[in-house]
Amino acid sequence: MAIITLLTDFGALDYFVGAMKGVILSLNPDATIVDITHEIPPQDIQAAAFNLLACYKDFPAGTIHLAVVDPGVGSDRGAILVECAKQFFIGPDNGLFSWISEREGKSSAWQITNERFFRNPVSSTFHGRDVFAPVAAALSNGLAAAEVGPLLENIVSLSSLLPRTTTGAIEGSLIHIDRFGNCITNFTSEHINQEQIAAGAKLMVNNQEITSIRRFFADQSAPENELFMLVGSAGFVEIAAQNASAAGILSAKRGDSVLLFHDDRA
Amino acid sequence: MAIITLLTDFGALDYFVGAMKGVILSLNPDATIVDITHEIPPQDIQAAAFNLLACYKDFPAGTIHLAVVDPGVGSDRGAILVECAKQFFIGPDNGLFSWISEREGKSSAWQITNERFFRNPVSSTFHGRDVFAPVAAALSNGLAAAEVGPLLENIVSLSSLLPRTTTGAIEGSLIHIDRFGNCITNFTSEHINQEQIAAGAKLMVNNQEITSIRRFFADQSAPENELFMLVGSAGFVEIAAQNASAAGILSAKRGDSVLLFHDDRA
Amino acid sequence: MAIITLLTDFGALDYFVGAMKGVILSLNPDATIVDITHEIPPQDIQAAAFNLLACYKDFPAGTIHLAVVDPGVGSDRGAILVECAKQFFIGPDNGLFSWISEREGKSSAWQITNERFFRNPVSSTFHGRDVFAPVAAALSNGLAAAEVGPLLENIVSLSSLLPRTTTGAIEGSLIHIDRFGNCITNFTSEHINQEQIAAGAKLMVNNQEITSIRRFFADQSAPENELFMLVGSAGFVEIAAQNASAAGILSAKRGDSVLLFHDDRA
Repeated sequence: MAIITLLTDFGALDYFVGAMKGVILSLNPDATIVDITHEIPPQDIQAAAFNLLACYKDFPAGTIHLAVVDPGVGSDRGAILVECAKQFFIGPDNGLFSWISEREGKSSAWQITNERFFRNPVSSTFHGRDVFAPVAAALSNGLAAAEVGPLLENIVSLSSLLPRTTTGAIEGSLIHIDRFGNCITNFTSEHINQEQIAAGAKLMVNNQEITSIRRFFADQSAPENELFMLVGSAGFVEIAAQNASAAGILSAKRGDSVLLFHDDRA
Repeated sequence: MAIITLLTDFGALDYFVGAMKGVILSLNPDATIVDITHEIPPQDIQAAAFNLLACYKDFPAGTIHLAVVDPGVGSDRGAILVECAKQFFIGPDNGLFSWISEREGKSSAWQITNERFFRNPVSSTFHGRDVFAPVAAALSNGLAAAEVGPLLENIVSLSSLLPRTTTGAIEGSLIHIDRFGNCITNFTSEHINQEQIAAGAKLMVNNQEITSIRRFFADQSAPENELFMLVGSAGFVEIAAQNASAAGILSAKRGDSVLLFHDDRA
Repeated sequence: MAIITLLTDFGALDYFVGAMKGVILSLNPDATIVDITHEIPPQDIQAAAFNLLACYKDFPAGTIHLAVVDPGVGSDRGAILVECAKQFFIGPDNGLFSWISEREGKSSAWQITNERFFRNPVSSTFHGRDVFAPVAAALSNGLAAAEVGPLLENIVSLSSLLPRTTTGAIEGSLIHIDRFGNCITNFTSEHINQEQIAAGAKLMVNNQEITSIRRFFADQSAPENELFMLVGSAGFVEIAAQNASAAGILSAKRGDSVLLFHDDRA
């Protein structure tokens, strides 16, 4: 039993996802295919990396994750297979999997070059169907990772997920803004917790302070627009607002700096 | 072979549905997962209840329906398992399944409290992944319903699906408005049929009369905007309009009263 | 192992797709159901025909494709089963499968009339659930095609996919415009190639010339709005623009004429 997940920016309007599934099922009729999402904003590698980071651990060992957000398709960007946390990750070498590798610490990567496993012919515009899907299917049929091509020393990486210590503060950033305007930081409960906040710890984004934390979103007694922290379901500290978009209130966008002060004199 | 359906308001943009599927497949790799919809309007319990009511009978005995439209997540709202019509229904105790229980007449409900079957740890914001999905998977693996927690006398219920008799009319309501503007009432063909309409029966919504019924939508000879009744695919009498939104023409919204007169002197 | 694909204009908001899947799994719990898309624009038969044409070849022999874009549901339009390229196609007889039949050259078609295989009762508004899904499931269980009803001499057909030769040019048309505004023509690499373009061949749409061809979309050095040709992943010559909508630049809509001149004196 092999699980192959799909995460793309293809949307739901066209035949693209169906074609990938057809290719997979032609090669492995027993594969269980799971859609994570196909609504990643077009070419938004970081949004894809965040969504995969947020759920890969929920899948069993041996799962094959196929991620295709691929602005460089047809150019000379590489195609990779990463083995990490007993799971497999297949896609273009553009940073999609680097947060998972970084968090897990240990991973192996191979460049996908062995055309024997590709669809024939390979188009210049649709490697999801012609390269990544058939390689994922071959892997689900028992292909050894090293058969896809040579080992890679390094894969293309996004900026580190780890906040860094500066004078008087720890500096993180907004790594994702969800559709409700919740601002996901790269802080976790290791960096900040309820006791520290009670003792005066706080976040600052665009010169606005966030000084309270909640266990969940719903709090009918709270004032509209009030900003608060919350440890979200992906394990990161999020900044949210009561019935409003925190990103709107903060005029925040992805990549914005988030400062964590553990001392209230800051 | 176990079928687990999913119905949520999570949308397709994020990792949420993927995470639930990963949890289910980690516990039962043989589960067949079926998406009913993830596009329920956010927190709209009644829309979720209607959509599940409209299709649960099309699934085989033993199907497990997992519905997560959960404005109260993290608060003290209950989590329930309902057995009804030889199928299972899992979700928050907020009315999602009450129309099905009411229609079937006979059902059993248990409060889901046994943390042994939960994901560890349980977040405060994502019980779909941490409580409902693993309990559904356990059930699909053969867990007895009574293992999830104590029997419940009552579940939270929406307003009754049954119209009520008033002086000179039967009063129903609009229980759903679909994306085309068709207005679904809680009348069925038991309340009104073609012969009665031929004899003068009619509906009234917001002081407008609907006096004709059709077998299907397409009728190229009919005037634009003409309102008519039709027994929809969910078994309810709908009010539709030729190439137009009936809800727009009637200025109708969900919950509006619908009066059925069987006597044309009304 | 049977694969049943679904392609509809039902959208993702309602229970419709879930109901079809429930019917299929009730009759064949082992069916593998694959969504191609449910976001065909409402009643757009040609868009459905294009998307199915673009991906059916990626599925294995024996696949059953169920396509429901059905403006005539409830009227006297026929229901058909087509066997073609070792695959099966089920849906209303309105042209959905004619491009596949035309391309493959050889196909057989049966009218679906045998009510023994229908859901009981059959609604007038939802043949996807009540006729097409149960017939697809029966077929996946081994039903012989001829059991569904009488052989058909002809099926309803869309305009031919083949360009036609005119004085001094070959005349094709735009058969699809995708969500990025790329204009898909009915020319293929059999009609036009890189060498011919280097020698002066060109396309004309709405009095605008397209004179260059590329292998893939990304070309950072190219000017914005520049129109170019590209052989798309469905095998057809597309007209695209650098970071812009080709359809917008050309004021083009589906069905517009495309002239191919192989001689640059034209």
